[in-house]
Amino acid sequence: MTVQDNPFLPLTAPGIAGLTPYVPGKPVSELERELGIRDSVKLASNENPLGPGPRAREAIAALMGEIGRYPDGGGFELRRVLAEYHGVPQTAVTIGNGSNDVLDLIARTFLYPGVESVFSEHAFAVYPISTQAVGAAARVAKARDYGNDLDAMARLVTDKTRVVWIANPNNPTGTWLAAAPLKSFIESMPRTCIVVVDEAYTDYVGEPDFPDATHWLEQFPNLIVTRTFAKAHGLAALRVGYGLSDPRVADLLNRVRQPFNVNAFAQAAAAAAIGDLEHVRASVEFNRAGMRQYLDAFKRLGLEYIPSVGNFITVDLGRPAGPVNHELLKRGVIVRPVGNYGLPDHLRISIGLEAENARCIAALEDVLAS
Amino acid sequence: MTVQDNPFLPLTAPGIAGLTPYVPGKPVSELERELGIRDSVKLASNENPLGPGPRAREAIAALMGEIGRYPDGGGFELRRVLAEYHGVPQTAVTIGNGSNDVLDLIARTFLYPGVESVFSEHAFAVYPISTQAVGAAARVAKARDYGNDLDAMARLVTDKTRVVWIANPNNPTGTWLAAAPLKSFIESMPRTCIVVVDEAYTDYVGEPDFPDATHWLEQFPNLIVTRTFAKAHGLAALRVGYGLSDPRVADLLNRVRQPFNVNAFAQAAAAAAIGDLEHVRASVEFNRAGMRQYLDAFKRLGLEYIPSVGNFITVDLGRPAGPVNHELLKRGVIVRPVGNYGLPDHLRISIGLEAENARCIAALEDVLAS
Repeated sequence: MTVQDNPFLPLTAPGIAGLTPYVPGKPVSELERELGIRDSVKLASNENPLGPGPRAREAIAALMGEIGRYPDGGGFELRRVLAEYHGVPQTAVTIGNGSNDVLDLIARTFLYPGVESVFSEHAFAVYPISTQAVGAAARVAKARDYGNDLDAMARLVTDKTRVVWIANPNNPTGTWLAAAPLKSFIESMPRTCIVVVDEAYTDYVGEPDFPDATHWLEQFPNLIVTRTFAKAHGLAALRVGYGLSDPRVADLLNRVRQPFNVNAFAQAAAAAAIGDLEHVRASVEFNRAGMRQYLDAFKRLGLEYIPSVGNFITVDLGRPAGPVNHELLKRGVIVRPVGNYGLPDHLRISIGLEAENARCIAALEDVLAS
Repeated sequence: MTVQDNPFLPLTAPGIAGLTPYVPGKPVSELERELGIRDSVKLASNENPLGPGPRAREAIAALMGEIGRYPDGGGFELRRVLAEYHGVPQTAVTIGNGSNDVLDLIARTFLYPGVESVFSEHAFAVYPISTQAVGAAARVAKARDYGNDLDAMARLVTDKTRVVWIANPNNPTGTWLAAAPLKSFIESMPRTCIVVVDEAYTDYVGEPDFPDATHWLEQFPNLIVTRTFAKAHGLAALRVGYGLSDPRVADLLNRVRQPFNVNAFAQAAAAAAIGDLEHVRASVEFNRAGMRQYLDAFKRLGLEYIPSVGNFITVDLGRPAGPVNHELLKRGVIVRPVGNYGLPDHLRISIGLEAENARCIAALEDVLAS
């Protein structure tokens, strides 16, 4: 049945019909059974191969007696800790069921039929989906060197634009924007346009002129910065992220937010993780070493790639990535095809443990040679 | 600052301005500090005082090594188990970050400016909030004996009605609808109107003619039944619920759903809990004994109450509940004022452990005598 034949479709809100249904990936256990393999390595979701640090683990363990109790609907302690960490008022913080949830809250608050959002080609999939879900229009700028082209994006901004989405670094390409051009771009935006700077991967970046957009919050009341605990903090299983903004913007987002959107384990683990700088540092060091493994291999194999400051690397196979991906799967290596991001010849590989990276490289070499 | 002075308000989607901001309750630890008390008892959120059963606890413990990994975005295993348990296809299942999330997905899919939803006075707070958040209009039927008056609700249904919300049992009143009238009501609804039967508290009900609306799913393609793991299954901290419906309706809901809306701990714990009938039975037995404690006390104290089949009892103090609630707080007893539900003289008390109930009853007796 196609969605056009669905008798309930005429009853839906604007935008719903245009949403692509999520095609659930098979869990690793199912995939292994189907392919008759064991011990596959999962390098597909930009997770932290070290998982969470000890402080987050302790916070979770301490909650095992409280599973029957609702989470704190206001996220009091988590917001307090985040506000302190960033030097902003608690009223500037919006907590989310992953930063995806914060992005979705932004769309639900500021987008609707008749207005528009702007983002780049090869940008994070949630920007188009959240825009579509509320029936707003998406304006997509051409990328420059696989990254956000701020001039091209600025040219798409009109008086109908309510939200501009910018991931820095960008996923799935790993490209990044320096402080000066990004700040100029935000300055140039009308104050009626919300600028979202999505800093999910910020902890991995070591470039000296890479910005921390949270420092600009006081200057730009239309700026929202989003962060997640799913990457360097290793809490992907629990779903927790947050937005920082002018408190007047946060007030509106928090009206739409479901009070219990962040579960109790996530709140406690995140509040413990934000101060665990040691674990973040170790995770970043680990990532650098893994990145070198891949870059050395790509050089040896003569493969082009998109230079990345994240915890993943997107490699150009010079041919359709689908069949290569299938062969990697048969060898128990799970990476991410990015055809749906407009990159049909690329594969995105998350940096894993040294042995996982080695296995991925060996499998890739094997497939490309055959 | 009132919301009318918020310079970002004119930029928001229809409905946002009418949303009441969530006023975060203080966490118990903060409240205790402020009031100078210790060991308060929390009987405010209809939680299971026994928490989860052993199977759910084991499922959580088994995941402690996977905190860094994203949950399964499709909820494959949880949907498989739920489909098997209810005897429906997997494609009939929509999983949510609590059943609140499923209710919100229903509103986002089927409600928008220009259409309406219908529900009863004293109904669950998420129905009006989710309706308002998408800019649709709410039509509120007068209650009958504090419960859903199906005739009054039917009279509010027009060709603009897209969703009718019915909680059975109802929260915060604990009233319930028998099988025959509820089924007749659903039969009488136009097929263009989604009927939501919210069965969050179904496990607690022992009445012989209380319906299981999931048995009617094949007959009514416009029926959605929602359930939660936060009550009898004791998983409130983790946030997990689900909807069952015609697969064509579930397909639309799943287009709006965020793939990672249910965290990994919640998925695993819920999949383990659904088959733990022993724990549900023990929780229900426990609840019956606690309910008797309250009913005996109310009789002794000459207090009226709304007869409840849930895990809570809503008592009529015969005077404004606010000051009584404040006095209970000072005695370390946290219950739920329900003025926002149109019941300013009532307090809703969740059934707790025997000693917690005894302490609540003693405090109430003390306050009412003073």
